[in-house]
Amino acid sequence: MTKEKQVINPWEVSGKIDYNKLIREFGVTPLKNIPEFEKEILFRRRFIFAHRDIQRVLDAVKNKKKFVMMTGLMPTGKFHLGHMLVAMQMVFYQKLGAKIYIAVADIEAYNARGQSLEESRKIALEYYIPNYIALGLKPENCEIYFQSERSKDSKKSNAYYRLQNLLARHVTFNEFKAVYGEISPGKMLSGLLQTADMLHPQLKEFEGPCPVIVPVGIDQDPHLRLARDISQRIKPPFIQLVSTYNIFLPGLKGGKMSASDPTSYISPTDSPKEIQNKINKYAFSGGQPTLEEHRKKGGNPDVDVSFQYLRLFEEDDKELENIYNRYKSGELLTGELKKIAIDKISKFLIEHQKRLKSISQKDIDKYLK
Amino acid sequence: MTKEKQVINPWEVSGKIDYNKLIREFGVTPLKNIPEFEKEILFRRRFIFAHRDIQRVLDAVKNKKKFVMMTGLMPTGKFHLGHMLVAMQMVFYQKLGAKIYIAVADIEAYNARGQSLEESRKIALEYYIPNYIALGLKPENCEIYFQSERSKDSKKSNAYYRLQNLLARHVTFNEFKAVYGEISPGKMLSGLLQTADMLHPQLKEFEGPCPVIVPVGIDQDPHLRLARDISQRIKPPFIQLVSTYNIFLPGLKGGKMSASDPTSYISPTDSPKEIQNKINKYAFSGGQPTLEEHRKKGGNPDVDVSFQYLRLFEEDDKELENIYNRYKSGELLTGELKKIAIDKISKFLIEHQKRLKSISQKDIDKYLK
Repeated sequence: MTKEKQVINPWEVSGKIDYNKLIREFGVTPLKNIPEFEKEILFRRRFIFAHRDIQRVLDAVKNKKKFVMMTGLMPTGKFHLGHMLVAMQMVFYQKLGAKIYIAVADIEAYNARGQSLEESRKIALEYYIPNYIALGLKPENCEIYFQSERSKDSKKSNAYYRLQNLLARHVTFNEFKAVYGEISPGKMLSGLLQTADMLHPQLKEFEGPCPVIVPVGIDQDPHLRLARDISQRIKPPFIQLVSTYNIFLPGLKGGKMSASDPTSYISPTDSPKEIQNKINKYAFSGGQPTLEEHRKKGGNPDVDVSFQYLRLFEEDDKELENIYNRYKSGELLTGELKKIAIDKISKFLIEHQKRLKSISQKDIDKYLK
Repeated sequence: MTKEKQVINPWEVSGKIDYNKLIREFGVTPLKNIPEFEKEILFRRRFIFAHRDIQRVLDAVKNKKKFVMMTGLMPTGKFHLGHMLVAMQMVFYQKLGAKIYIAVADIEAYNARGQSLEESRKIALEYYIPNYIALGLKPENCEIYFQSERSKDSKKSNAYYRLQNLLARHVTFNEFKAVYGEISPGKMLSGLLQTADMLHPQLKEFEGPCPVIVPVGIDQDPHLRLARDISQRIKPPFIQLVSTYNIFLPGLKGGKMSASDPTSYISPTDSPKEIQNKINKYAFSGGQPTLEEHRKKGGNPDVDVSFQYLRLFEEDDKELENIYNRYKSGELLTGELKKIAIDKISKFLIEHQKRLKSISQKDIDKYLK
């Protein structure tokens, strides 16, 4: 890839997403229709559109063999709707029989962003983990851990950090620079720990050799590629990592949903009133400038942020298609489309907030074994 | 320091060691006479000749406060007499009341020398640890650990590796290069783990804040300097490390005693016959080429390897001075000096080997808590 090439923003709402271009740029494999996965909206609606080596996980599911879904969270900034995509995948794979490993990247937050471990712990416990639970993550077959404190079992902790240290022999500075750009010792340690996060479930102290699937945003593929390369150099080599790639839920104004810009995101604790205000005020619209023009030319649902949200929140395919066609034909006005999205999201969040309220510290502790 | 300057070889037997030059080059502080330490031959005979911040340890000894002596072993190659110096210091500080921490640098051996963890474990258990025990190290107030497996207590293991990861934020690549020359990710991880080795005794999961003394060869000072710098940048800062600096026991032919050259070292398992052969055949002599010349001009004990060994093995100061003067005057011939050294070392090693034989795996296990 040359530097001159257009930077890929898989969350950019600026015309239909060119999946083929993303797939070409990153060298990943397009995800074919997987009948067993179609019940999950993220697969059915192509939020997840590419993979590496997914057959290994499909075989495990088919043969009822052990497999792991590994993911992480960066505990900087609050949980927002954009984070739902990975949480939905946790729940999906857990139901399929996967053991779920979730790393709280507090070492990375310290080394790359200067955030204290205490602050990271607070954010993970207050914002991220309760939302995962409210979205359906179960404590059985699930392990949430902090990078700074892998386990209460010393065999596991020793094995995890040992792996981080041993991996270092099998990588060069230049490989790190290719992924991280300018690096520092802190970023390098974080990168190695991230690689250990992905690989350690296969150690004998954890699950033993088994497929590990790491679902990521498409922009994260360089990290996966590096981990895959290192994993085959160390003796004995690991079973090659499986990965899937998703686009992102766009922010309200288009672009990335960012925890550092409140006008870009919807929080799971927003009230219906706040959702109404945010969507009416900020949500990028695919409508025409005037009512007359809109009726004549129709709206563009492909760039309309409210419609993108409905792709996640309206589960009925027929109804979604209906909305798409009515907006495109000009029958549905932008205000009307926004109202449908506001209602859908509000309804979902009212239920979600009820579940959030019922979660106690004791519930959370079940996930931190 | 400029590159053109003469490289310091503190084990080089080529005239009297220029302590002042070593002290100037490394910027360490000359060690003044410490009455309580004079009973230890290494201090009395200036094998240990410089320090940084030793007052902190002297205060701890005086006030019977907790302090730690921290050291490590590189488990590549066999234990030889040159390794005795650090072992003698373990025993000395342990008797003074220090808790002794000993790191087996198996991660460093893997990352910097490509040696497997299994091989490192074997070498540490077969060669190094039994010799420490035979030299008088007690299991009480002593903890020997492997870098790849810090503790059976998960709180301790997590704290140790967490420290390694957090330290990374407080150091730059250039600082590493200044100490290690060309670096690799593996060397960098090892360097950070070495720094964690020196600092972690002060963590609350270990001894809590207390002075830690790290006795090293003078050539190791750059590592100490780096650890001292990093230790003051992290919040909260550590109590500044204390260090002492020793010259080395020379190899038989002069130069460094090296485990990779059997004609350079005496092994603690050598028989009296082997010692006799090695010293007679290889030991660099300060004698004159002919008997006549020797009687006339006298020998040079300052460059004579057998005499250097006697500085360690002849405990009687009067007797040592006597030998020195008799050799210098020409009264004592090289063969006679060698015989004195052979007898002294043989006598010591016969006792040492008896102790070695009596050490069981169960004894060793007491040190690996």
